[in-house]
Amino acid sequence: MKNIDVCLTPDLLHLHSIDNSIVIIADIFRATSCMITGFAYGVKSIIPVETVEECKKLQEMGYIAAAERNARKVEGFELDNSPFSYMSESLIGEKIAMTTTNGTYSIAKAKASAVKVLAGAFLNLNAIVNYLKTQPYDVLVLCAGWKGRVNIEDTLFAGALIEALEDEYFVPEDSAIMSLRLYKQAKDDLIGYLANSSHIRRLQNLGIHKDIAYCLQKDLYDVVPILRGNELVNL
Amino acid sequence: MKNIDVCLTPDLLHLHSIDNSIVIIADIFRATSCMITGFAYGVKSIIPVETVEECKKLQEMGYIAAAERNARKVEGFELDNSPFSYMSESLIGEKIAMTTTNGTYSIAKAKASAVKVLAGAFLNLNAIVNYLKTQPYDVLVLCAGWKGRVNIEDTLFAGALIEALEDEYFVPEDSAIMSLRLYKQAKDDLIGYLANSSHIRRLQNLGIHKDIAYCLQKDLYDVVPILRGNELVNL
Repeated sequence: MKNIDVCLTPDLLHLHSIDNSIVIIADIFRATSCMITGFAYGVKSIIPVETVEECKKLQEMGYIAAAERNARKVEGFELDNSPFSYMSESLIGEKIAMTTTNGTYSIAKAKASAVKVLAGAFLNLNAIVNYLKTQPYDVLVLCAGWKGRVNIEDTLFAGALIEALEDEYFVPEDSAIMSLRLYKQAKDDLIGYLANSSHIRRLQNLGIHKDIAYCLQKDLYDVVPILRGNELVNL
Repeated sequence: MKNIDVCLTPDLLHLHSIDNSIVIIADIFRATSCMITGFAYGVKSIIPVETVEECKKLQEMGYIAAAERNARKVEGFELDNSPFSYMSESLIGEKIAMTTTNGTYSIAKAKASAVKVLAGAFLNLNAIVNYLKTQPYDVLVLCAGWKGRVNIEDTLFAGALIEALEDEYFVPEDSAIMSLRLYKQAKDDLIGYLANSSHIRRLQNLGIHKDIAYCLQKDLYDVVPILRGNELVNL
């Protein structure tokens, strides 16, 4: 039987052996939700990079650049970290270079040893589930968190994925059991459950209630972003 | 208003600034439960040390030695990691040297910068609560976890402490909110809630159901183990 496990923040990834695992990166607010939206709207590829400087270099080479730090758009880049900015005809067939506070860092950490790296969010939950079921590998959900700390929304996504897979996967570790139980507690009202979370408070100061509600919708897109070399493409 | 926060494993302690905080170490199964039981039964002091070698050295100097690795007693030491072994008249007034897989490591990590370091467990929950209320400092619960990973039982203790303090403390971070919500879900049946946890499975292989049920009892002892220099004493 395959295992499914959860790493609650990239700062704990050293505790996980992932060389037989598909790693699902979850950065619900908002990096992976943006990526999935972008692919659903026709983006060709997304290169996640760790620094603003790398992102700028790729911008000079013709990529459309997206850079977020501390939940805000970095000046001089085309796209911010709102999924609504990815719903544009101008992005069809384009290549995007993206750096974010937490999501792209997690991808960089995972890609060194994972079998495959996918981008997951509520928006493509079922697409991820269907893909994983066809694969012989263990699964690790890597929650991007916030600057090394755990957060509720990424943990809830991990729980949602486990709930969908628990009949076919073994759930050996407490981090995964905790994620599943929190999700069961939250699932009938995700927005209400998250109302008091630290990141929602951070985001509400930026006035983006619309983004929050959007990112918590399930199964909007049949999209599976997967890392091929250095870039994410739609499977 | 004072803050209460939770660090889910010692491997995340670098993310917390604790120089204005009292740190409560929680290693429910079973290091801090043992310490509290020991003090309740008249132990004079407990020196937590990180290595089996240090423990042996103190044993040669007349300390009663307690060493656990991977949930088992290390050969050649008097005490194992069962709280029942601390209920002995022979320990009254004695000094103990203790090393465990997770609990003593957490104490060593916290003592470098915390204002005070206490040992907490369900057994002395209310005693800890009453003491903290008299103090002007923020609180961090440091869950000892298992070899760097999070575990459910220490997280539940953190949640129980927050529930008891939430009227007087601000709960700013998601790790603390998650702990509180898990505890609210679990509190009516802690043993049942933990039945599937990874550490319970580990311990059940060692046949210690009795220890588990004991360590989940609330407010058995009015004891507050506090670190003074290198040794824990009862406040």
